[in-house]
Amino acid sequence: MAGTDHTQAPILGGPAIVLVKPQMGENIGASARAMYNFGLTDLRLVAPRDGWPSDKAVAMASGASPVIEGTQVFETTAAAVGSLHHLYATTARDRYMIKPVMTAEAAAQDMRARTGRGEAVGILFGGEKAGLHNDDVAIADTIVTVPVNPAFASINLAQAVLLLSYEWFKQADATPAVVTEAEHAKPATRAEILAFFDHLEQALDDAGFLFPPEKRPGMVRNLRNMWHRVALTHQDVQTLRGMIKALQRTDPVTGKRLDQALWSRSSGD
Amino acid sequence: MAGTDHTQAPILGGPAIVLVKPQMGENIGASARAMYNFGLTDLRLVAPRDGWPSDKAVAMASGASPVIEGTQVFETTAAAVGSLHHLYATTARDRYMIKPVMTAEAAAQDMRARTGRGEAVGILFGGEKAGLHNDDVAIADTIVTVPVNPAFASINLAQAVLLLSYEWFKQADATPAVVTEAEHAKPATRAEILAFFDHLEQALDDAGFLFPPEKRPGMVRNLRNMWHRVALTHQDVQTLRGMIKALQRTDPVTGKRLDQALWSRSSGD
Repeated sequence: MAGTDHTQAPILGGPAIVLVKPQMGENIGASARAMYNFGLTDLRLVAPRDGWPSDKAVAMASGASPVIEGTQVFETTAAAVGSLHHLYATTARDRYMIKPVMTAEAAAQDMRARTGRGEAVGILFGGEKAGLHNDDVAIADTIVTVPVNPAFASINLAQAVLLLSYEWFKQADATPAVVTEAEHAKPATRAEILAFFDHLEQALDDAGFLFPPEKRPGMVRNLRNMWHRVALTHQDVQTLRGMIKALQRTDPVTGKRLDQALWSRSSGD
Repeated sequence: MAGTDHTQAPILGGPAIVLVKPQMGENIGASARAMYNFGLTDLRLVAPRDGWPSDKAVAMASGASPVIEGTQVFETTAAAVGSLHHLYATTARDRYMIKPVMTAEAAAQDMRARTGRGEAVGILFGGEKAGLHNDDVAIADTIVTVPVNPAFASINLAQAVLLLSYEWFKQADATPAVVTEAEHAKPATRAEILAFFDHLEQALDDAGFLFPPEKRPGMVRNLRNMWHRVALTHQDVQTLRGMIKALQRTDPVTGKRLDQALWSRSSGD
């Protein structure tokens, strides 16, 4: 136990997650797992009810070993946050204190700005039953509240840690919001698509589908536009041309495959 | 069990959460609780391993009764999503399918746009062990992936439901990102603040602190600027003036309170 050592090195990279008087080891472990999913590793416990280390925490952490192994334990909140420059307190209800109240997203942006200029930051979370004591909120700079359904605000400890960790990670995540093209797919060339259109329309002409003649141009345009919405790949075009050929050699009434000679004649292949 | 009924009424308001072959009742309950925190109520289960209803689910739902009571059970994914217009599939890994891949946030924006024009939408989540089968992903329009720590991607079922529900809720949440003023606090008037400055500076002059005289103007300006950073309330000013008076009647060497006569003289009160 680190006692009242205020001299620990500032963390690098992400906020310290400070659980004040957590009760169940399972919830500490679930918090560690939540943190590590989003790259956070600095877990600090203030007077955990069931002690530390905890087998139940290890089991629930599901392999987030770097977090569990580096977890520090302190007797007081003051000792746990001594090395930090800016402190956030998570609360579910108004504490009637005059300090900024931020959403989780805004707090994450604020944390990124502060760590970017070298500040060490941390987030206080209260125990399972009552949350943070007002004395702990009073030593924080900023209150963080996750907006929830007013009719049912019931986020548990590990869920709150998850949401704050997620918002922290998101602020620097470069994943594109939407990827519309699979990198591994080879798009069809325009020539392949036009040859497919010719093949399809010839088959439909043979089948008497593009009828009457005055409606043919509009029908063709509609079909072509529909196919373009698919953003066809090279493989898609091969598959579709195979489908057309297969359909042409099936008897629409019996569902039976026609003989090769008949199919060769009607498809013009 | 609703079997293959594709005619259920479209949901209103939020996405359906569709858990495909979930295993443990606890995880279904935790998912229900996560949903209801963010205002979602339409939970659909496809072939839950341990059956339905589930006492363990009820216990873990912690009072999210409207979700638990309205939960529908289906034999197949196709039956569960029959009433929906647009379907998202959550996956942790690339499935090599050619369809849009969105972050949770982008997907939530897309869902809001779709429900805004009357579409019913739903999100598929796979079971605890293997996630969604490729056959289930193949009937979805869009893949959703939560960006996580590449070194440790281990979000459990209820956590995934929580993050998607949270992003959905956030898109329409009107909570200001930062509230810097407590609504219940009455700010100090400028006259109160200036009277406090006069009081403080007189006390510091009496104490010989604002010395030498040529440095006094700069020292006063620095102090005044520091106090403005506090955004003083009416009550703060009363408290600070009381503090000054109290300090003035304490002997700095012994820490003992001076007698009333001396204090009255030196404070000029």
